[in-house]
Amino acid sequence: MAEPGESVISRVVRVLAAFRGGEAELTVAAIARATDLPMASAHRLVGELVRWQLLERTANRRIRVGLRLWELAVRNSPQMVLRDRALPILEGLRAAIRQHTQLGVISGTDVVYLENLSTRHSPAVTIIKVAGRLPAAFTSIGMVYAAFGPPEVRAAIEETIPTAVTADGPRSPADLLPVINRTRSTGVAVVEGSVHTDVTGISAPVRDPDGDVVAAVSILVERGSPMVESTIPAVRAAAHAIGRALGEETTRDPQLALLEYMVRQGTAEGHPAAPLHTGP
Amino acid sequence: MAEPGESVISRVVRVLAAFRGGEAELTVAAIARATDLPMASAHRLVGELVRWQLLERTANRRIRVGLRLWELAVRNSPQMVLRDRALPILEGLRAAIRQHTQLGVISGTDVVYLENLSTRHSPAVTIIKVAGRLPAAFTSIGMVYAAFGPPEVRAAIEETIPTAVTADGPRSPADLLPVINRTRSTGVAVVEGSVHTDVTGISAPVRDPDGDVVAAVSILVERGSPMVESTIPAVRAAAHAIGRALGEETTRDPQLALLEYMVRQGTAEGHPAAPLHTGP
Repeated sequence: MAEPGESVISRVVRVLAAFRGGEAELTVAAIARATDLPMASAHRLVGELVRWQLLERTANRRIRVGLRLWELAVRNSPQMVLRDRALPILEGLRAAIRQHTQLGVISGTDVVYLENLSTRHSPAVTIIKVAGRLPAAFTSIGMVYAAFGPPEVRAAIEETIPTAVTADGPRSPADLLPVINRTRSTGVAVVEGSVHTDVTGISAPVRDPDGDVVAAVSILVERGSPMVESTIPAVRAAAHAIGRALGEETTRDPQLALLEYMVRQGTAEGHPAAPLHTGP
Repeated sequence: MAEPGESVISRVVRVLAAFRGGEAELTVAAIARATDLPMASAHRLVGELVRWQLLERTANRRIRVGLRLWELAVRNSPQMVLRDRALPILEGLRAAIRQHTQLGVISGTDVVYLENLSTRHSPAVTIIKVAGRLPAAFTSIGMVYAAFGPPEVRAAIEETIPTAVTADGPRSPADLLPVINRTRSTGVAVVEGSVHTDVTGISAPVRDPDGDVVAAVSILVERGSPMVESTIPAVRAAAHAIGRALGEETTRDPQLALLEYMVRQGTAEGHPAAPLHTGP
């Protein structure tokens, strides 16, 4: 049940969080169940979110995430700046080694994936999705942050190791210790079989110009394959190249900025007289 | 000024919309100015959005879009499903023709870009950004929707032609008519010099299994270049291939779905006891 006095924003977050991986469309009843909101409240809240295009109603009266929410969240997110700079380098890495290639960041004790480039050439099973989460303790990106991030990140990861889902998954901080130590000494995290028995994750830190870890590049390879060793230099090089790309100045061409401004005036957003939420 | 009784959600949308292209970080004062909210209201609202990680505060007390908002918006958006299916095909198109390559959809009278793959090999100037908007009347994707979308989309585009920013930009529905007619007869929209004098946009419709236009592929080429003609078959083929990819069944491996479920239980989101907004 909604707590009395619970803020609208917290309820909006709960509604949006009800859309989990694999459930792109929900009924209002399913949203009410998932959020523990009374049906009437769920109806009202969903109705207003639809009015502002943060949610959309499908032809069969289901609800899905709206284009406007996606646009507002993506357009100016620092994640997208990072992802845009990284994308050509990630594409190059995948093309060179033909393995699933990811970019991720830490969020609390989870890794959130900013990009995921899969390939048909790898037999490695992957459940990684863009904007999906995995527990940091299970992933090579998590181990990069445990090894090179602020001490409180490592402490939090060690405090919240989830129940293992494979025979080789970590069960205690003691299981993480050798991985973290090896990551510190080699600069690359290698995690074997924590998410899926037959898959090894390999990850290297992306550092901003101040040397802080702001993301990590990872790849998935078949466990025990010679690729595990042979791809390490490529992963390290890609992470380093992304860090360098982050340090490059973005020289904004003033002429282009003016053109952008002029063209934007002609969009629905540039017209206060034509509010976006009342489009045709 | 905020209207009395204006809903929290409408104010949240206004705050998020204040972050426009090129302004990834704003002060609370700038947000108050851009949204026309009183300073005290802007402070309160931003504070709560930060608490729920929909916004983030930077080290120098500026505000930016939060990782959590990005995650909630991206993870289950229908746009991302489309973009994920399209990405390998868009990458193939760009590799084949070496021109800036985009995927976009209509939103009211604007085109919103779902993906933008640029290339160093093209001299064509582009202001397109992922999640950015351009007026439909200026773009080849807009003309694809005018030609092949529902009649009300064409009517809306013709009613709201913005002020031209180049000598060749459209000024009235009469200027769009030959482009729309040619698009209908050839299946491909070619728009010359509407956004930038020296750039031609070329676009083809992506149709779902029902034949409805659900997106369009576009490329930008230097105006007058022989590439304008020679790339048309490739753009058409890519759009067709994306439509086919949308029709393919996604056979969800039940074992993989179980693994996903189990691993997700170990994320902060899977733990109702450890709310996401109180991370370390």
